Amino acid sequence: MKWSTLSIFVAASVVSAQTYKRLGTCPSLGCIFPPDQTDFYAGAYFDIRLEVHSPVNGTEAFKNGEIDKDFTLCVQKGDGPCEDVTKFFTVEDSKLDTWTFSYYEDLFARDAGSASVVNVASKGYRALALDEPGMYTAHLKYHQTMETVAHWLVREPAPERKAKNAIIFIGDGMTQPMITAARMIAHKSINGRYQSLMQMDQMEHLGHQMTHSIDSYITDSANSASALFTGHKTTSGALNVYVDSSRDSFDDPKYETVAELFRRKRGGAFGIVTTADVVDATPAAMCAHTRERGESAGIVYTFLNGASGDMGLNSTLAWPTSCEQPDVLFGGGAQAFLPGPESPNGTDFYQAFAKEGYNIIHNNTQLQGVDLEKKTLGIFSKGIMSQWLDRHIYPESLKGRKNSPLGDDSDALDQPGLKDMTLKAIDILQNRQKDSGKGWLMLSEGASIDKMMHALDYDRALGELLELDDTIRATIAHLKEIGELDNTLIVVTADHGHGFDVYGSVDTKYMAAQTDPRKKRDAIGIYGESGLSGYTVAKGSSPNNNTIVVGSGGPNFPVQWDPRYTFAGGMAAHPDIREGWQVNKTGIRKTVVSSDDGYVANPNDQPEGIEIDGTIPDENSSGVHSLTDVSVFASGPGGEAFRGVYNSIDVFFKVADALGLGAPSPESQ
Amino acid sequence: MKWSTLSIFVAASVVSAQTYKRLGTCPSLGCIFPPDQTDFYAGAYFDIRLEVHSPVNGTEAFKNGEIDKDFTLCVQKGDGPCEDVTKFFTVEDSKLDTWTFSYYEDLFARDAGSASVVNVASKGYRALALDEPGMYTAHLKYHQTMETVAHWLVREPAPERKAKNAIIFIGDGMTQPMITAARMIAHKSINGRYQSLMQMDQMEHLGHQMTHSIDSYITDSANSASALFTGHKTTSGALNVYVDSSRDSFDDPKYETVAELFRRKRGGAFGIVTTADVVDATPAAMCAHTRERGESAGIVYTFLNGASGDMGLNSTLAWPTSCEQPDVLFGGGAQAFLPGPESPNGTDFYQAFAKEGYNIIHNNTQLQGVDLEKKTLGIFSKGIMSQWLDRHIYPESLKGRKNSPLGDDSDALDQPGLKDMTLKAIDILQNRQKDSGKGWLMLSEGASIDKMMHALDYDRALGELLELDDTIRATIAHLKEIGELDNTLIVVTADHGHGFDVYGSVDTKYMAAQTDPRKKRDAIGIYGESGLSGYTVAKGSSPNNNTIVVGSGGPNFPVQWDPRYTFAGGMAAHPDIREGWQVNKTGIRKTVVSSDDGYVANPNDQPEGIEIDGTIPDENSSGVHSLTDVSVFASGPGGEAFRGVYNSIDVFFKVADALGLGAPSPESQ
Repeated sequence: MKWSTLSIFVAASVVSAQTYKRLGTCPSLGCIFPPDQTDFYAGAYFDIRLEVHSPVNGTEAFKNGEIDKDFTLCVQKGDGPCEDVTKFFTVEDSKLDTWTFSYYEDLFARDAGSASVVNVASKGYRALALDEPGMYTAHLKYHQTMETVAHWLVREPAPERKAKNAIIFIGDGMTQPMITAARMIAHKSINGRYQSLMQMDQMEHLGHQMTHSIDSYITDSANSASALFTGHKTTSGALNVYVDSSRDSFDDPKYETVAELFRRKRGGAFGIVTTADVVDATPAAMCAHTRERGESAGIVYTFLNGASGDMGLNSTLAWPTSCEQPDVLFGGGAQAFLPGPESPNGTDFYQAFAKEGYNIIHNNTQLQGVDLEKKTLGIFSKGIMSQWLDRHIYPESLKGRKNSPLGDDSDALDQPGLKDMTLKAIDILQNRQKDSGKGWLMLSEGASIDKMMHALDYDRALGELLELDDTIRATIAHLKEIGELDNTLIVVTADHGHGFDVYGSVDTKYMAAQTDPRKKRDAIGIYGESGLSGYTVAKGSSPNNNTIVVGSGGPNFPVQWDPRYTFAGGMAAHPDIREGWQVNKTGIRKTVVSSDDGYVANPNDQPEGIEIDGTIPDENSSGVHSLTDVSVFASGPGGEAFRGVYNSIDVFFKVADALGLGAPSPESQ
Repeated sequence: MKWSTLSIFVAASVVSAQTYKRLGTCPSLGCIFPPDQTDFYAGAYFDIRLEVHSPVNGTEAFKNGEIDKDFTLCVQKGDGPCEDVTKFFTVEDSKLDTWTFSYYEDLFARDAGSASVVNVASKGYRALALDEPGMYTAHLKYHQTMETVAHWLVREPAPERKAKNAIIFIGDGMTQPMITAARMIAHKSINGRYQSLMQMDQMEHLGHQMTHSIDSYITDSANSASALFTGHKTTSGALNVYVDSSRDSFDDPKYETVAELFRRKRGGAFGIVTTADVVDATPAAMCAHTRERGESAGIVYTFLNGASGDMGLNSTLAWPTSCEQPDVLFGGGAQAFLPGPESPNGTDFYQAFAKEGYNIIHNNTQLQGVDLEKKTLGIFSKGIMSQWLDRHIYPESLKGRKNSPLGDDSDALDQPGLKDMTLKAIDILQNRQKDSGKGWLMLSEGASIDKMMHALDYDRALGELLELDDTIRATIAHLKEIGELDNTLIVVTADHGHGFDVYGSVDTKYMAAQTDPRKKRDAIGIYGESGLSGYTVAKGSSPNNNTIVVGSGGPNFPVQWDPRYTFAGGMAAHPDIREGWQVNKTGIRKTVVSSDDGYVANPNDQPEGIEIDGTIPDENSSGVHSLTDVSVFASGPGGEAFRGVYNSIDVFFKVADALGLGAPSPESQ
């Protein structure tokens, strides 16, 4: 399948996320991608895209939009000579391309429909690399007298590899307030001392990373995962490309991911495990290169065939590095694999993967008995996988979902959990590289921490967080068992936050008994009245009871999920909602219903609770991401580098350095 | 002045915070304080209080409330013999005391006025110590057949001192989401890279501590500061005592603070600096011992005379350790010093401190020229000190506050900031111990981070946080200058959180132009639409402008506080409010007004914003604390111990160990 065939299925969106700005990383009229302030990993591939803007109208109007075709780029290492880009990188010059895009300068312009139009001249250079550490500057000269300078830093890579394997756990949207809340509901505290702890609490190294986007301080999961996996931040919604102003969402300038680099430099095994669709932003960020995270057909195509080269960028050269055909690909999202109207040329991707030698599995029974020799595609539900809380505590709610990965409208009742998938993935990766010494790299994502926080379903979100913690605990035990613990870097982090915190307790019995909405609020106990966790005692027990018991979910999970005294928690950002702080026993909470007036509170959600006005635009049906730095927990070889406070991009550099992917000689890699 | 004279001024409150529980740390009918799970620092003093409860009615009614006077306590080291408490500690037996208290079992009982009554028999033992590390058990036998066992651990202290001096910075209520927001408004990011960083970001060691109370998962600042400064958690509202059920709020069983221990073991200099009243919870927690943090007269008395012994506990023995007469005591809160109806016997505490040799100062001019030889009391305003934002950006708002520390209803316009106070305090402490080698211990608190978060005045809260960060930066520079940096442990942490986070930006111009409340919400930009910080560019500039400029507040503070594009942030917990995300230029924001229906939104606050319903009981006029773990940043000798995730009490142990306060020989101390 040629890429150009696929691209007809791609809905080209006109320069997304441009409200307030022409192009996020390009405040001047001359744009260099990678932009000013970029750090590079020595030897990793990246594309260069140049754009010269000529705004036709609006506050930046320039010479009636007259296009400049005579711009030049020279690149300089340190104080050395500034050489033309073609000479500096020894590449052929790019052909010149031109196009036009438009954007709104602010919300008033949007309401008035007054778009600002910009004419563009552009060139592009495919798959370059900077091998030598040091400072570089790139000088773009345009519009006769104008100049844009980008300062680039190629960091000194670690001289040798420390870790044979690496596993990156992502708790999507997981903040410290959530980890604290999960500890509180799952671990018993007696007189101020926790009798057991989260596995994350016990990791050897602690750090914080800053999650902001390249051009906005709140990020989405695509951009943040790109930063974590490549060392390059980008714009919200983009996967491993800098966002240019052209229409095609697959032709933006790329940069290499840790998975591509690991495969190219080491040739080890590679796997992805997620509780989301496998084409969702975080797993896709290991392999895909597109401005539009929603391009699921293109992302499946990339998993199978790699990122095609014939995608514009004024170049016919192929993107020469790829993590196509990962050894393990486990998660949900069958709708991207099944033949149907959204599948390119009606392709059945299960068949296409099988044809490439993949073992295809669809439930936990098959997973448990899986052949460890083969590449394995495990797709376990139609959309995102079911949550821990439903699978373990409220299994009745799994019925009637018609979410079988086979697309036959039956229920996917035999889904594995994150722990099942992760442990089996380790076995397959280990088996596929065992004697080579090449090691393996793996992503394991607890995706629905984020998805349930979006739904304001705090119980399910914390259940997913506890499942992630349980998975990390089991992974450490399993790696120890197979003798790989000391060879394996383990990193646990998140990609962004949600502004959630707990602030008290709720006497749900008292709240239900009141009719006056203001009186209902009296059920909320703050400070000392918050009391102790009702989740860690047996049904009907007082939170003050010091007996340690285990619930049906096992140790390290709540004993009960619907105690009389629940926690009062919430978000800074949410639509209109009703809140009663009670677990939803029938599946994911549905907080809103659509109305002529945008989304409004669902009157059937939390009927015994109170109403709270929304704090975000009413076209949003869910909570949204937040700014906070997120925690990083690490152990194993190279783990000590994860201490302290740093930018999200540093996670990539630290992982790559632990794996020795920039080491000068192949021997030390 | 005898304590018994003072105690008439003390409003005895009947067993606070007992909704849902009889006595937080005592789920059985026999209570041992220190309770089960207590950790001790070798050689530090603590009281023992025993209580045997006989509930007269309610769900725990027992033998019609018949009192048991024949209870016994024996204490056992490891597997050794269990010896009667008098023998084990070689103390005289306590006389027996009895009393009665009542509480409500839940909110229904409260509404019905159905109190549960409990008869109590009690003994107490003053100022004991456990010198030898190891496990101990205390066995209380009562009601013939019942037994309560407390497991106690005396931790192995560090064998020698590492740090000569220690400074503990507390950002009251400061969470990672706030630090992240402060970084965003004060430091310029270009293409995803901050061009400067917070000082906290650059500290050598990072940790997290868990802030929960001994008997509730949300804490207040008294209990949390007690934990940080003594290694003992207690109940919300209590300072350095376990909360017993007796009426007197000064007779609860005490434990020694790091300041008392440092003075007793080392004899070094000691100082307290805060932007709150000096009798407020956090500074009081260095010295005071009372169940009621609001007992300001008793706390001033303690600062002057020490914690008196004649305070019940069935003992006439004095509490033998004290941090009375600190070398430096700087902050606000003149109302606790001025003679008046609340001052014991009409005492003028300024005079009383002067009589003990104190230099008394009241403004920044006096502070800058202060005599470094003398003990110094600096009280700079009537209540809490004015905020950085008003002092530096909106000084007009300081007028008319009638907050002079002299109590003459003039305005305190010449107040020092936290940085001024902290640097001068270091000079005094350094000067007063200079040649002794005994070193100094100091608390510096940015108190109004918390107070402004309570007021939901996020701008002022972040201003205070940035002032704290600026103070830490200046402290490091100053310690380096005077040659003490390598001798000084620096610890920065918080005592609890507020559930605040930032989730987007607000086009305040667009919001103001809309009249429909739902349309106003369209002004909020989320994800990529949040854009870049409007606070780090010059007035009228676009957030995308990459020029680095400095505002009137200096570097490391916002360039402007009222950009067109402000941040959208908020709280999980708040009263009914109006929110427009604009800086309040006339002093602290007033979000609510009182009504027959409890507190409701102030119609004059943020008039261009939207209304948001409250999420806490409507008798609360402010936001409340949250659960989240808080960050710890440390540098200097002993700083490496602050890495990782731990309980709040561990902060005390780590500080005490760095200072060598449990070291076996005086030489190594």
